[in-house]
Amino acid sequence: MAAEIVNPRSDSTDEGADGVGASFDPAFALHRGGKMAIQATVPVRDRDDLSLAYTPGVAKVCSAIAERPELVHDYTWKSQVVAVVTDGTAVLGLGDIGPEASLPVMEGKAILFKQFGGVDAVPLALATTDADEIIETVVRLAPSFGGVNLEDISAPRCFEIERKLQERLDIPVFHDDQHGTAVVTLAALRNAAKLTDRALGQLRAVISGAGAAGVAIAKILIEAGIGDVAVCDRKGIVSAGRGDLTEVKRELAGFTNKGGRTGSLEDALDGADVFIGVSGGTVPESAVATMAKNSLIFAMANPNPEIHPDVAHKYAAVVATGRSDFPNQINNVLAFPGIFAGAMKVRASRITEGMKLAAAEALASVVADELSAECVIPSPFDERVAPAVSAAVAAAARAEGVARA
Amino acid sequence: MAAEIVNPRSDSTDEGADGVGASFDPAFALHRGGKMAIQATVPVRDRDDLSLAYTPGVAKVCSAIAERPELVHDYTWKSQVVAVVTDGTAVLGLGDIGPEASLPVMEGKAILFKQFGGVDAVPLALATTDADEIIETVVRLAPSFGGVNLEDISAPRCFEIERKLQERLDIPVFHDDQHGTAVVTLAALRNAAKLTDRALGQLRAVISGAGAAGVAIAKILIEAGIGDVAVCDRKGIVSAGRGDLTEVKRELAGFTNKGGRTGSLEDALDGADVFIGVSGGTVPESAVATMAKNSLIFAMANPNPEIHPDVAHKYAAVVATGRSDFPNQINNVLAFPGIFAGAMKVRASRITEGMKLAAAEALASVVADELSAECVIPSPFDERVAPAVSAAVAAAARAEGVARA
Repeated sequence: MAAEIVNPRSDSTDEGADGVGASFDPAFALHRGGKMAIQATVPVRDRDDLSLAYTPGVAKVCSAIAERPELVHDYTWKSQVVAVVTDGTAVLGLGDIGPEASLPVMEGKAILFKQFGGVDAVPLALATTDADEIIETVVRLAPSFGGVNLEDISAPRCFEIERKLQERLDIPVFHDDQHGTAVVTLAALRNAAKLTDRALGQLRAVISGAGAAGVAIAKILIEAGIGDVAVCDRKGIVSAGRGDLTEVKRELAGFTNKGGRTGSLEDALDGADVFIGVSGGTVPESAVATMAKNSLIFAMANPNPEIHPDVAHKYAAVVATGRSDFPNQINNVLAFPGIFAGAMKVRASRITEGMKLAAAEALASVVADELSAECVIPSPFDERVAPAVSAAVAAAARAEGVARA
Repeated sequence: MAAEIVNPRSDSTDEGADGVGASFDPAFALHRGGKMAIQATVPVRDRDDLSLAYTPGVAKVCSAIAERPELVHDYTWKSQVVAVVTDGTAVLGLGDIGPEASLPVMEGKAILFKQFGGVDAVPLALATTDADEIIETVVRLAPSFGGVNLEDISAPRCFEIERKLQERLDIPVFHDDQHGTAVVTLAALRNAAKLTDRALGQLRAVISGAGAAGVAIAKILIEAGIGDVAVCDRKGIVSAGRGDLTEVKRELAGFTNKGGRTGSLEDALDGADVFIGVSGGTVPESAVATMAKNSLIFAMANPNPEIHPDVAHKYAAVVATGRSDFPNQINNVLAFPGIFAGAMKVRASRITEGMKLAAAEALASVVADELSAECVIPSPFDERVAPAVSAAVAAAARAEGVARA
């Protein structure tokens, strides 16, 4: 089926990309000319239209905004459009491929925003990897946007960039590789715990991977009340005693690993209830076998899960992956469209921890009635998802006092 | 008719803008929610679609661009999208109203790009008025765009910003307030000269206004071979002997005013063939009366032409204004959509003087067969315009060696 998709901008040949496999791959035909366009939402058919949408009519609208700045939300697309900002340093599994090569992913993100959340989004791939320059650039762009989705910016710069931007801006700044993943993971974990009759506080979780996603998942699991969360990097459990920790990991060691464990990932997994993989690499079956009974295994590396589902199922009560061809796909698209839609609807000044927790809860609730080991998280195409997440996020924004409309 | 236009995002009331005249003005209803949206040009209906437009399929396209950077033009929207960049310092006749208040104009510009040129455009109103910061910001944004339209940036910063940006970027940078106006003015002047049987070299022109538009018009008229061009600011003719000239005006004095005139605007007009007003202000009828017989009067200030058409017609063979309710409207929308469409079609690295001259010539040619004193320039809604301009600009780009496709 996929090969039949026709991009209206495509022409019949892709000789331009000969030598890069273009002639054999339907992805190239689909991508020709890009995946998005601008659309006018008002008519410009005649002089009357023009004199309202442009000069002279537009001048009155400009003057009104100059007089009452908050009107920019009413009379422009600002509150409906997100900047999807990247520097191209951590793109999919490809790494630092630069801004131009990251654009197909950013356009993809933009059309997912539209398709799933009704949110407009503009890909902005920046020609700098300097954190301060990225921050300055986004601050200068902020008047035109209602939110900033940071994407595929490598750790640890992504943490600083997000924090400093949110300090300086009064619109939501959200690094999706961190928080989108964290929200969906928590939602799936909530349902998996419910399904196996355990309270979140009873669970001991092990996260493999201390990058953007791992850090954010650790934070949200602790916020949500998971009993113990240990994060492992390549050298093992991130624990206070280690002398080789970066600043981010030192901070991580301070609020994770309540049990005070040290040692390897295998040591951490011994008796653990939950495995969350956001690292790549492979976990040996022998280690999986040492986990607690009815374990919950979320092996999210793509395309190769840290623990293959066939292996995981031998031991686990619930298995989730990042892949669409297995049940329980942990897919960010379940979170970011609704989160931004809800936050921008109420003109939230930021996306708080409470809003993320509310998003996870709402996402989990969508499949409350059809909960099973094969369904702890909705399909990305479940149309109930974005409205539920959006409503929950908007309500949480109001409750937390960050809503302005 | 205008009041009947319905924005699908509008709701029935505009109480949000009470006190700024919103309830009485159809422009506010039209502008509610903004005037534009993002549209996906590929389907995202199911998992197969998602796996082509996003992960994992998109990875191959990213890798191909990383390997062969020029493929970004083929497989993203880069070569179809223009950044409409402003700092909000010279918006319409409103002046320095800031980035947020300028957004309705920038959105308007974006939808005109789409409607008239089929070109996607994104409004970027920046929270800085510092020339170096604007330049740095746009340089960092450049990977995502095929062209940069500078808009409503005040003189003299606009000159430096455009020049330095074009030096640093390999995509077209075009300050429309300068060159768009200049191209359309030259096109009208070509036809007006033809209609009155005069060669361009015979004409002596006086430009009132030494800002962005005035400087650019002076340059293009001289490029096109107009015999003598004098520019006047508030203090009179910009001439080498004046001690009060800014850098830009000193440069202007160096290549204009071949006749070496000094004195006031009235002095300049005595015996002149052409008046071009881009200044506001009023020219006394007594001065108009001193112009050469069969004069050509382009009084483009909006909403009040420097010389009212009723007065101008007493003396002139051809009268043009900036207004849509008189014949011969000098409207930038006749130029910028086709210029960018043509330049981006052949992936021009810049918009050269030759490309601007070609645009003016093509624009003039559109009405060659219906030329009259009431029709020296096409209507903005003449569907022949953008294709003619685009084709001429693309051909000129090839001829000048700046095309890359």
